[in-house]
Amino acid sequence: MNKAYANRMEKVRPSAVGELLMLGAQPDIISFGGGYPAPEVFPVDKLSSVFADVMSQSGPRALQYSTPEGLLSLREKLVLRMKQSGISCDLDNLFIIQGGQQGLDLVAKMFINEGDVIVTESPTFMGALIAFNPYEPVYKTVPMDEHGMDMDALEEILRTNARVKFIYTVPEFQNPTGVTMSLERRQRLVELANQYDVMILEDSPYREIRFQGELISPIKSFDTEGRVIHLGSFSKILSPGLRLGWVVAETEIATKLCLLKMAADTQNSTLNMYLADKFMEKYNMDEHIQSIRVLYKEKKETMIEAVRQYLPSTVSYTNPEGGLFTWLTFPQHVDATTLMRDRLLPEAKVAYVPGSTFFPVDEEVNHCRMNYSGASKENIIKGVAALGTILKEYC
Amino acid sequence: MNKAYANRMEKVRPSAVGELLMLGAQPDIISFGGGYPAPEVFPVDKLSSVFADVMSQSGPRALQYSTPEGLLSLREKLVLRMKQSGISCDLDNLFIIQGGQQGLDLVAKMFINEGDVIVTESPTFMGALIAFNPYEPVYKTVPMDEHGMDMDALEEILRTNARVKFIYTVPEFQNPTGVTMSLERRQRLVELANQYDVMILEDSPYREIRFQGELISPIKSFDTEGRVIHLGSFSKILSPGLRLGWVVAETEIATKLCLLKMAADTQNSTLNMYLADKFMEKYNMDEHIQSIRVLYKEKKETMIEAVRQYLPSTVSYTNPEGGLFTWLTFPQHVDATTLMRDRLLPEAKVAYVPGSTFFPVDEEVNHCRMNYSGASKENIIKGVAALGTILKEYC
Repeated sequence: MNKAYANRMEKVRPSAVGELLMLGAQPDIISFGGGYPAPEVFPVDKLSSVFADVMSQSGPRALQYSTPEGLLSLREKLVLRMKQSGISCDLDNLFIIQGGQQGLDLVAKMFINEGDVIVTESPTFMGALIAFNPYEPVYKTVPMDEHGMDMDALEEILRTNARVKFIYTVPEFQNPTGVTMSLERRQRLVELANQYDVMILEDSPYREIRFQGELISPIKSFDTEGRVIHLGSFSKILSPGLRLGWVVAETEIATKLCLLKMAADTQNSTLNMYLADKFMEKYNMDEHIQSIRVLYKEKKETMIEAVRQYLPSTVSYTNPEGGLFTWLTFPQHVDATTLMRDRLLPEAKVAYVPGSTFFPVDEEVNHCRMNYSGASKENIIKGVAALGTILKEYC
Repeated sequence: MNKAYANRMEKVRPSAVGELLMLGAQPDIISFGGGYPAPEVFPVDKLSSVFADVMSQSGPRALQYSTPEGLLSLREKLVLRMKQSGISCDLDNLFIIQGGQQGLDLVAKMFINEGDVIVTESPTFMGALIAFNPYEPVYKTVPMDEHGMDMDALEEILRTNARVKFIYTVPEFQNPTGVTMSLERRQRLVELANQYDVMILEDSPYREIRFQGELISPIKSFDTEGRVIHLGSFSKILSPGLRLGWVVAETEIATKLCLLKMAADTQNSTLNMYLADKFMEKYNMDEHIQSIRVLYKEKKETMIEAVRQYLPSTVSYTNPEGGLFTWLTFPQHVDATTLMRDRLLPEAKVAYVPGSTFFPVDEEVNHCRMNYSGASKENIIKGVAALGTILKEYC
């Protein structure tokens, strides 16, 4: 049988670290590898109460088809939240998606012909690369420092690549580095996009999980030409198991993206949209998010403290002001994949995500992403200490 | 601003009948236009009981990320149901999708390069065309009679088109015609696919909603070479608001499709997969489906009876053995779109879906799709009678 796949399937392959991560998911492993929210922050009782309300008030409606753009009252609430964060938008600009990930797929589907250029941070969120790859883009990458993308390097890319369609960024507590883009760079980013006539895809799943430092306005809030597409998500502030996110975009773009959404899966779960909507109606979302921030701040501080205490001083780390991850940089000769496979997993039963997987081009091997939201504080200390012991022998 | 969309966006347009259908969705309209299950069959109380069980037994797990292929115990149950329907498969062959619609998107994404041929029935499900269009296929269409696709016409297409990638069919109670493909044609279809080395996409959302006649084995059950991809759905047998469906395919194909699923939206709602799983564990799914069949049979008979009684004898109709739709054919000079816009909606406040929208090529204007699951029996009689009055004046 001749399985005549489309050409795009050459870009669709299992992740090279997939098998390693599977090992890291076993129950006896202390895993810093996931990107999972802490399960203890899921509001199980409140959602149970909300479910009962939804079934008694709107049972059959909540189980029926609704519309591709999603539940109106939920969209109204999100428009209000977006306005409060400085993003000027209306119902025509906002619709519901199947988690932020679907936004990445839809935006690439809408803009990318084979060979078009997507500019990303280096490193960048690997889930975005997985979403973009089937559309066969070419990646150009921008180095980062502690304030985010190097804007001069970005300008050089824009100046020398005619086929750039959009710049992809996770501006807050970036996955994988934990780095936040500064206010000045956000403004410069929009200026550059205007000047070189390209789009910006602002992926903000962690924005509200800021536990220290000053809130910085979203990139979309500086958008005067409708060229920023903003993605939000309920995964980190309510529950990833509901698969709810949202897009904010200029009207024509939002309308076309929503046609692609309808083509791809008709609509989101009506039930889950009702649950999120009634949760926000019945309870105080900001108070709920605040409780997540308090917990994650403790966990982050526990991890950074352990890193300082147990890892060799040749290991550098980021100190995020929010989100779920810190990023470790080992001495250049240390390959984080080899270290994990040959020593850390078998000897210490500790896992992280090797950093190489986050580089679209020019892989760097001596980094790893460490998640602190998923593990207990006790396991954070234990796991980092074990990593320290092995690193000291290894280096 | 230069919105440099990808080329595929030229194929992504709002449906021409969309506006008309919006009018048909207003509350004072008797609408036969939707494809909605009857809300009275949604098991609100049982799902409430199931939700309480899920939250108390697995609350945090049901709100957390799970895996792209979906909840293991749900997949196990579906493998068993598939085997009972004659489809030989294993866990490696089956994964969960966001309703059947996502299967249509993923299969086209996997197989279609611009200009590749998809063969469809004529008419065919318009949602499939919406899913396929962004991948820029060429459509070749096969006429149908009361036993489904004309297999000689199909063979002629396969013989003369080298770029056919797959044949798309809704074999049971087809949307829009209500026609079921006979056993003999299913076997011939698989033989032709083998002979001409093409895939078959079997879209079976209505399969279990058979209320009369003999059950016919799925096309996939005759597949000896792994070239049939079978799509199932919970939308018509449990709730469309959960957005749950499944794919059955040969292992390599299932694995690659699941990579595309992960790229597109990470996974389905964990919560909703738990709900469907526990529903099937706690209650008897077959009994539940039987209650749907009883209701839809009554509604179908009410509609066919009304069609016979009130419509002119120049109107022909299909008499489906299951599913949600019958298909009316008016005299050739009657344009169903014009009739609905100019007379039926304003004068009688009755809506259907004009048939032209279901033809990928060579539109025929003198048909309409009539849904009987959504309306009350009283409204079915009233609406068909009103259609009859207007048709008699119009013809």
